[in-house]
Amino acid sequence: MKKIEHTGIAVRNMEASNALYTKLLGIAPYKTETVESEGVKTSFFRVGENKIELLEATNTDSPIYKFIEKRGEGIHHIAFDVEDIEAEIRRLKNEGFTVLNDIPKRGADNKIVAFLHPKDTNGVLIELCQDI
Amino acid sequence: MKKIEHTGIAVRNMEASNALYTKLLGIAPYKTETVESEGVKTSFFRVGENKIELLEATNTDSPIYKFIEKRGEGIHHIAFDVEDIEAEIRRLKNEGFTVLNDIPKRGADNKIVAFLHPKDTNGVLIELCQDI
Repeated sequence: MKKIEHTGIAVRNMEASNALYTKLLGIAPYKTETVESEGVKTSFFRVGENKIELLEATNTDSPIYKFIEKRGEGIHHIAFDVEDIEAEIRRLKNEGFTVLNDIPKRGADNKIVAFLHPKDTNGVLIELCQDI
Repeated sequence: MKKIEHTGIAVRNMEASNALYTKLLGIAPYKTETVESEGVKTSFFRVGENKIELLEATNTDSPIYKFIEKRGEGIHHIAFDVEDIEAEIRRLKNEGFTVLNDIPKRGADNKIVAFLHPKDTNGVLIELCQDI
């Protein structure tokens, strides 16, 4: 785990939330990106060495739609930057964590990603991500 | 907002969660601290320029006890490092945010802190913190 890459926040309305976080952070998002395979529209803000990622569902099958239905808007995940995602998946499985993606999948922002099941991590959904 | 200072995670059992996050992050907590006025025991891990703060309630009046009763364990807040907390409180109130502490209060880790109401920030509890 090199550092926290980003914190993902599930929102209902990207446009309103982009305006809100622009006021909060004093900076505008530097990019927006839709990941159709995940059913999400994303926007990214830089804060120090981290990013804040806002996530809006693009359809009702989206994990973000389901998250908001169940828990309301809020922090959805923390993503850690790793150098070798496959080695990290092996290490964490050996440590007893449940990895939801044995094979990393394509995420937003030119990365491959894998998630750990929050049941093993005090209810926190943890993403591992590696630059492509 | 200079950077994200830490992410706070509400846990039921600090000892078990310290062991868990030590395995996850590959490092041990560098300090633990009890803030009696807030009803919390805390432990801190360094990750890059950020910290992960685990929070366990010390009594049933603790906001952490109430959070876990309502939502279960999970991410409790994001804390942003600010240079002048009083100026930042004024700026954010002018922008329409609800600041829960007009006068910053003493927090863990030698800081004064103030919180923004999550109703204005997509369900995310945001802490402003300044080194003393």
